[in-house]
Amino acid sequence: MAEGDRIWTNARLATLDPRLIGLGVVESGALAVRDGRILFAGPAAELPAPYVARAEVVDCEGRWITPGFVDCHTHLVHAGNRAREFEMRLAGATYEEIARAGGGIVSSVSSVRAASEDDLVRESLPRLDALLAEGVTTVEIKSGYGLTVEHELKILRVARRLREERAVSVTATYLGAHALPPEYKSRADFLREVVLPGLEAAHAAGLADAVDGFCEGIAFSPEEIRLVFDAAKKLGLPVKLHADQLSNLSGAALAAEYGALSADHLEYADERGAAAMARAGTVAVLLPGAFYFIRETKKPPVDLFRKHGVKIALATDNNPGTSPLTSVLLTMNMGATLFGLTVEECLAGVTREAARALGRQPEIGTLESGKVADLAIWDIEDPAELVYRMGFNPLHARVWRGRAQVQA
Amino acid sequence: MAEGDRIWTNARLATLDPRLIGLGVVESGALAVRDGRILFAGPAAELPAPYVARAEVVDCEGRWITPGFVDCHTHLVHAGNRAREFEMRLAGATYEEIARAGGGIVSSVSSVRAASEDDLVRESLPRLDALLAEGVTTVEIKSGYGLTVEHELKILRVARRLREERAVSVTATYLGAHALPPEYKSRADFLREVVLPGLEAAHAAGLADAVDGFCEGIAFSPEEIRLVFDAAKKLGLPVKLHADQLSNLSGAALAAEYGALSADHLEYADERGAAAMARAGTVAVLLPGAFYFIRETKKPPVDLFRKHGVKIALATDNNPGTSPLTSVLLTMNMGATLFGLTVEECLAGVTREAARALGRQPEIGTLESGKVADLAIWDIEDPAELVYRMGFNPLHARVWRGRAQVQA
Ligand SMILES: [Zn+2]
Ligand SMILES: [Zn+2]
Repeated sequence: MAEGDRIWTNARLATLDPRLIGLGVVESGALAVRDGRILFAGPAAELPAPYVARAEVVDCEGRWITPGFVDCHTHLVHAGNRAREFEMRLAGATYEEIARAGGGIVSSVSSVRAASEDDLVRESLPRLDALLAEGVTTVEIKSGYGLTVEHELKILRVARRLREERAVSVTATYLGAHALPPEYKSRADFLREVVLPGLEAAHAAGLADAVDGFCEGIAFSPEEIRLVFDAAKKLGLPVKLHADQLSNLSGAALAAEYGALSADHLEYADERGAAAMARAGTVAVLLPGAFYFIRETKKPPVDLFRKHGVKIALATDNNPGTSPLTSVLLTMNMGATLFGLTVEECLAGVTREAARALGRQPEIGTLESGKVADLAIWDIEDPAELVYRMGFNPLHARVWRGRAQVQA
Repeated sequence: MAEGDRIWTNARLATLDPRLIGLGVVESGALAVRDGRILFAGPAAELPAPYVARAEVVDCEGRWITPGFVDCHTHLVHAGNRAREFEMRLAGATYEEIARAGGGIVSSVSSVRAASEDDLVRESLPRLDALLAEGVTTVEIKSGYGLTVEHELKILRVARRLREERAVSVTATYLGAHALPPEYKSRADFLREVVLPGLEAAHAAGLADAVDGFCEGIAFSPEEIRLVFDAAKKLGLPVKLHADQLSNLSGAALAAEYGALSADHLEYADERGAAAMARAGTVAVLLPGAFYFIRETKKPPVDLFRKHGVKIALATDNNPGTSPLTSVLLTMNMGATLFGLTVEECLAGVTREAARALGRQPEIGTLESGKVADLAIWDIEDPAELVYRMGFNPLHARVWRGRAQVQA
């Protein structure tokens, strides 16, 4: 074997291999890595002898290995926080009072515009580190707090820089159609003057891996989203959609019509939307942190997703306004407790299905030979513990591209 | 100044001093410690010059200092976990199916009985460490999973041992009247043969700082609790009560009648109970983790507590069945998000009022001269961030009895 070959033995694997049932568990498992990719993941007894000969061997002492976690929906690059707004809301302040005090998304937009790239890197790293400390190996990051071409691109450049700063894969999503900034009165003008040129510019600079939009009464209409998606398709970029969170605008069906990688939130999605998503292979990305934080009461239609075979992913939605959440473990607990997802759905939702929601399922999200060796190794007796506990992190080690990481 | 004197300067203090308004904030603050006690906490400009002369000075660089957190209601010493039961419940198993599979409190009781003291210490330390990592300096631990005299005392001995293992203050509470163990059919027999003799034995061995009971339809009646409380009073031990969680048995009023330190849970408490608690000085300990985890819908009557001036504390209720929660920060977020507590109520609830719920407010819970120097130092701009964020730990340092602690 080549230099750097490594084998993890005496491990229990939750492979999430879709050819196996449930979590794809392999007891008495072993996992071999070469050049950052999985050579073998399966029963130790079947590990081909030549692999063992010269590899470095790591004894897992019975610990569990899962795929590294994938946080497939975040707004992690932002500046400032909205703790004061949260405090005002608890103290009984109205929406208008908060807005007058400079709160709301406008405050995040001005903070991001005022921040340099270095500022944004510095402010975002602690949040990223919190995710990595729980075994995240891939994170998606959206723009959307800049809302000028220049500031949207700045956020995407920061997303790229974060993967230089840490051992993590970062997917960057252009979300120009996030909100109407205060200097615009007309959404049409904003789309024409900022969102569409910004998309072109982000693509030209190689900064966008996908394109997202916020389809909602308080944001953009389905017709406006179509303009953005048509432009994305012309550039060959995959699309995603914040859909049906607060009302049913048939966002799920719209996303499916464009073959979106995912439709996200989906509290108000209906059966037509679920069926369309299933046919299109569009993943339902559920965001229980936002549901919890803004005290939503209508849950996403998990039974419809199950009935139609829609794949379900879970993500933190980390953002300063509606989900200041930096724990994938807690996200799973919320998915189970608040949405009634099973342990298997939760764990698949932050690994295999989250990878699918990013279009990266051929490369990551399961422990299968040929995939990138992104792993999380856990001090647990049963994978259900990862979902069951609240505020407890049993991570033993994080492995990114075959290399064990010491956390910052 | 004596050897070991230490001053923290350039700090912002949230003193929680009840003589000040709100969080008792002191900007440009300083805090001086001698022999493990606070000599001075206030504006740096008022720091008496002699204190400064020979003390070791720690520059907080503008960080915030709060009192060390007090987790005033936990069942932290237990064995095993009930992740599998959680998984079965999510998969649709009935209560009977779970019981047949060995789930429920019975499973925790058999795990604890089978465990040695060393086992219990080893299993409990990671949970304790999770609390300490978030700035906890005092933790209350209840018995109640042994349910024989021998095994109840074992849990209390383990609680005592934990304070030898870590730099933390531990308060031990005897909770023999927690549940009826499977070998008993009659609660009267169990009280007479186990709970009351166990109480005497725990007291004689100096193992009990307080006495608790679970007053509920599924546990013990008010009349049965009276037997326990009368015995506790006779021994001079303060009492606490798990009250009105799932139904209104007038547990709040019962606790108040006995001058209980606290009544805990209280979802179904009524105005008569709140008024009685206020008169008795009984603290309302709210446990949002359990509310969240078992999907309760009736919230404790926070407005009644405010109206009558009942002090409100918050705790994790860490236990394997209904609150596998080991984060005081998340507990505060849940208190705000689920129960509508203000930021000030949350922070007072895990410091000053939690200390009061343990009868330890003369010694801990605020930054006032004369109190024990238990501190938490935070990388935040605003104390509201401690409540607002989810799954993020901005602790910079924990100080127990004046000494900065390096976490395990
Ligand atoms: Zn989002
Ligand atoms: Zn309890």
